[in-house]
Amino acid sequence: MGFPSDLTIARDAALTPPQEIAEQMGIGSHLLEPYGESVTKVKLEAADELAHRPRARYVVVTAVTPTPLGEGKTTVTVGLGQGLNRIGKTATIAVRQPSMGPTFGIKGGAAGGGYSQVVPMETLNLHLTGDMHAVTAAHNLLSAMVDNHLHHGNQLGLDPHNITWRRVLDVNDRALRNIVVGLGSRADGIPRQTGFDITAASEVMALLALATSRADLRAKLGRIVVGYTREGDPVTAEQLDAAGSMAVLLREALKPNLLQTLENTPVLVHTGPFGNIATGNSSIVADQIGLRSGDFLVTEAGFGADMGAERFFNIKCRLSGESPDAAVVVATVRALKTHSGKYTVVAGKPLPEEMLAENPDDVHAGADNLRKQIENCRIHGVSPIVAINAFPGDHPSEHDAIREIAADAGARSALCTGFTDGGAGMTELAEAVDAAAAEDSSYAPLYPDHATLREKIETVASRVYGADGVDYSSQASSQLDAYEKAGFGQLPVCIAKTHLSISSDPSLRGAPTGWRLPVREVRASAGAGFVYPICGEMRTMPGLGAQPAATRIDIDEHGEITGLG
Amino acid sequence: MGFPSDLTIARDAALTPPQEIAEQMGIGSHLLEPYGESVTKVKLEAADELAHRPRARYVVVTAVTPTPLGEGKTTVTVGLGQGLNRIGKTATIAVRQPSMGPTFGIKGGAAGGGYSQVVPMETLNLHLTGDMHAVTAAHNLLSAMVDNHLHHGNQLGLDPHNITWRRVLDVNDRALRNIVVGLGSRADGIPRQTGFDITAASEVMALLALATSRADLRAKLGRIVVGYTREGDPVTAEQLDAAGSMAVLLREALKPNLLQTLENTPVLVHTGPFGNIATGNSSIVADQIGLRSGDFLVTEAGFGADMGAERFFNIKCRLSGESPDAAVVVATVRALKTHSGKYTVVAGKPLPEEMLAENPDDVHAGADNLRKQIENCRIHGVSPIVAINAFPGDHPSEHDAIREIAADAGARSALCTGFTDGGAGMTELAEAVDAAAAEDSSYAPLYPDHATLREKIETVASRVYGADGVDYSSQASSQLDAYEKAGFGQLPVCIAKTHLSISSDPSLRGAPTGWRLPVREVRASAGAGFVYPICGEMRTMPGLGAQPAATRIDIDEHGEITGLG
Repeated sequence: MGFPSDLTIARDAALTPPQEIAEQMGIGSHLLEPYGESVTKVKLEAADELAHRPRARYVVVTAVTPTPLGEGKTTVTVGLGQGLNRIGKTATIAVRQPSMGPTFGIKGGAAGGGYSQVVPMETLNLHLTGDMHAVTAAHNLLSAMVDNHLHHGNQLGLDPHNITWRRVLDVNDRALRNIVVGLGSRADGIPRQTGFDITAASEVMALLALATSRADLRAKLGRIVVGYTREGDPVTAEQLDAAGSMAVLLREALKPNLLQTLENTPVLVHTGPFGNIATGNSSIVADQIGLRSGDFLVTEAGFGADMGAERFFNIKCRLSGESPDAAVVVATVRALKTHSGKYTVVAGKPLPEEMLAENPDDVHAGADNLRKQIENCRIHGVSPIVAINAFPGDHPSEHDAIREIAADAGARSALCTGFTDGGAGMTELAEAVDAAAAEDSSYAPLYPDHATLREKIETVASRVYGADGVDYSSQASSQLDAYEKAGFGQLPVCIAKTHLSISSDPSLRGAPTGWRLPVREVRASAGAGFVYPICGEMRTMPGLGAQPAATRIDIDEHGEITGLG
Repeated sequence: MGFPSDLTIARDAALTPPQEIAEQMGIGSHLLEPYGESVTKVKLEAADELAHRPRARYVVVTAVTPTPLGEGKTTVTVGLGQGLNRIGKTATIAVRQPSMGPTFGIKGGAAGGGYSQVVPMETLNLHLTGDMHAVTAAHNLLSAMVDNHLHHGNQLGLDPHNITWRRVLDVNDRALRNIVVGLGSRADGIPRQTGFDITAASEVMALLALATSRADLRAKLGRIVVGYTREGDPVTAEQLDAAGSMAVLLREALKPNLLQTLENTPVLVHTGPFGNIATGNSSIVADQIGLRSGDFLVTEAGFGADMGAERFFNIKCRLSGESPDAAVVVATVRALKTHSGKYTVVAGKPLPEEMLAENPDDVHAGADNLRKQIENCRIHGVSPIVAINAFPGDHPSEHDAIREIAADAGARSALCTGFTDGGAGMTELAEAVDAAAAEDSSYAPLYPDHATLREKIETVASRVYGADGVDYSSQASSQLDAYEKAGFGQLPVCIAKTHLSISSDPSLRGAPTGWRLPVREVRASAGAGFVYPICGEMRTMPGLGAQPAATRIDIDEHGEITGLG
């Protein structure tokens, strides 16, 4: 008998009715909108009604720079929530909604793993309450209105060669990356080149995650820039009279979804912005509710601490006004061994044989990455706790090596076996988080609003990435000048770079030094409220493999799904 | 004080909790999956649990050939359900889900009008429970897998120039009608020309409406033909291993949605297939449930009796095995005046001034169309009842003219004022329907399964459309031969022609004679289970106007929608 599959474990879960989960959070049933039997939306009024309640400790879960296999950050996030329950604390978890494209591509779907999962798993991975689809619909309505504007005379003077607004679908479809639209007859629009991104890469998704209220959502939508005139002036969704309808399409999607863990810990699942060209964090609205619903709110930030956590500190918390109390840095033996530079891990393939041998020295050889990511929490004034996420085949001496690295860096650490043991395997981390969060936090974003865009980029590059400096292409330079002139200079920056290295070179392991950050191009998500310099190739529409997960997923006549996860 | 807007009336409605609506239908709460506060899905198990209950009378609502403005068929359908309640009968209504594309295009959204509407109106017109989006997702997953198959070596030998499967989105976007995908580098797929249709035109939508069970849905999905090899052999979704995942994506969408009228009559809203290239009828699954839920099931078929009702009789009822008991033919003064040939009605413009004068002779001059549509019900063995849908500005003498035409044709008739009076204005029709449905029905489809495709086309053309014969292009002829050879010969036919004339020429009014049906091309919806000959230009992706409804729709800070409907 092997260890059961995620789907088997998830299906055996004893779910508590969502009304009871909400009740635990202090949210009455008048604030709920049930969707099916096991999920409910929470009305936005909940944040106001809960405002008098004590504020939860706010814990962000981040990681070392991951291997292409991922280091189980969601599993630790979910497990930590369960672990806090085990030590007598109430906790809410906030995570992003999985994208359906990868579910049918490589992953088969999941949120967490083993005995630390969000359930119901099928609902979570398939449509959920339709928020992703609402983002798709709102985004593509604007796209249609852009092309319709060209077709009906282009009164705003949009330059057809400088339209930056593309289309989106939640599917892995490489053939849609670069397309020509508007072919056919005169009645079929104006031909031009454009393309589709996956919905998670939509600025509408980024915007939904950063909206602080319904009014703020409406205003942000209006500020979306769809392209530029021949004179270089931005043209907005408001000018196209599209923002009102987009807000209408997002009316339900702005409400967070309440699910639960296998151990019935409340989980707010909401929004799913990309982690490279966007923030990679779940929504501000969900956190507003979760922060008044118990002793702890545990939220996850995408990729390593240089990526999602940096945006959490400098974009999300800046906009929400909330201060985090602790940061969990997930580390694994396999990630640190990889950061030694001796091994190459490839997605979809087993680990190299030699990585499986007991070798704490290899772990120590990769310590620089962990040390730097610990520092990346500290420079924002937040206490780091190292979560050692145990994998089968790890050796105790290797776990000890990680403990030593953490201790040398002055950080707490805890061994996590939430995958195999659920919350019972997470109490050491829960205790460490409880202790760290009780200390005074001195959270502050790394740069002020009034710094120039170049100063902001250079601050993140030097202090978070460890770069010696920043090199701007001439295109990037003129774009930055234009954005400053257009009034986007006060926005924070979201640097789009690889998540596989702290540097912008995905092949560099550890904590690279002696390099400069090359900014090729700079784009503005004026609606979402950030500027994103692009350093390297950012793929915004995945493809499918030769044997995608979709070929193995099926359903029987009773409606039971097979092959998912 | 003018007559209140549809949205104002809808918002003032006193909704009954969906659990109580279901209770009226004999459906217990264990068979419900609530979605938000005012809508619930009904589980498929409901049909089995209700099987012992008496069968409802099955009434289809169809119409004369409509003007481009529409003749209020949904208003009559909804009003009839309410009217049946007023005369002491229990009734369920079954209608299609509105498409969001037109909601943001020309219409602003609606289902029915005045005091005969389906509510909640906003939910109905915006996402509902996400079924349309699920169809979009399932359709486009297959599209991605088709292009992925080409990219990864094309083992099945698909001819890239003979791929018939396109993509879909629920948006009016003319620029997507004809596109080239797969541009960019080698990693970005194989370039080829294709396009997007609106989701309502998806074969997946047609198939969902015609599925009789979960297993049937799965089998139908597998039979979808995506294209042909160079040898002309069909390649299916099953061969691409895509059908299982598509069925998984449609798991919730197969369950009908329960809403209500302004007077709390139950309304099953489910699926939304196009009325020209598909059946234009709501789902078999919804009818299976509605037929065991009261005294009457009132369902609507798209466009005139030559269109939706013909498919209802020859495709939907053939596949479901259910027999209709009566057919309501909606007629209006303005439609019959138009069929006199003296007036031209244009969408989006007011009626010509001279059409508003009292002129019963003009109504009589357009009688041929009504007579033929009455006959089109009778040739299927079903009793017709003419519903005179009153409009402001109609004259009583003109209503009398319609009554005379109906009486001369041996059909019952009733004046309907459901728009202004709700169910109270529909009791005359309800009584007439009750009387007609109590008579013995001799329903039978017009042709047997074993007739050839040409025999089927010619039967519908001569008996329903009144054509002198059928002319096949050489392309159509060879396609028919190929489909017979491929085993599609036993399928019914769904003739795609204009809905603005009983003939294939949209400019011909009344009941045209002395013409032949030109079949330009024939396509197979092998998954949905019909072959569709194409007679004329069929637009499967609408565009937006110069001032689309989307520019007027907005939301306030309390979440209230403005400008919809």
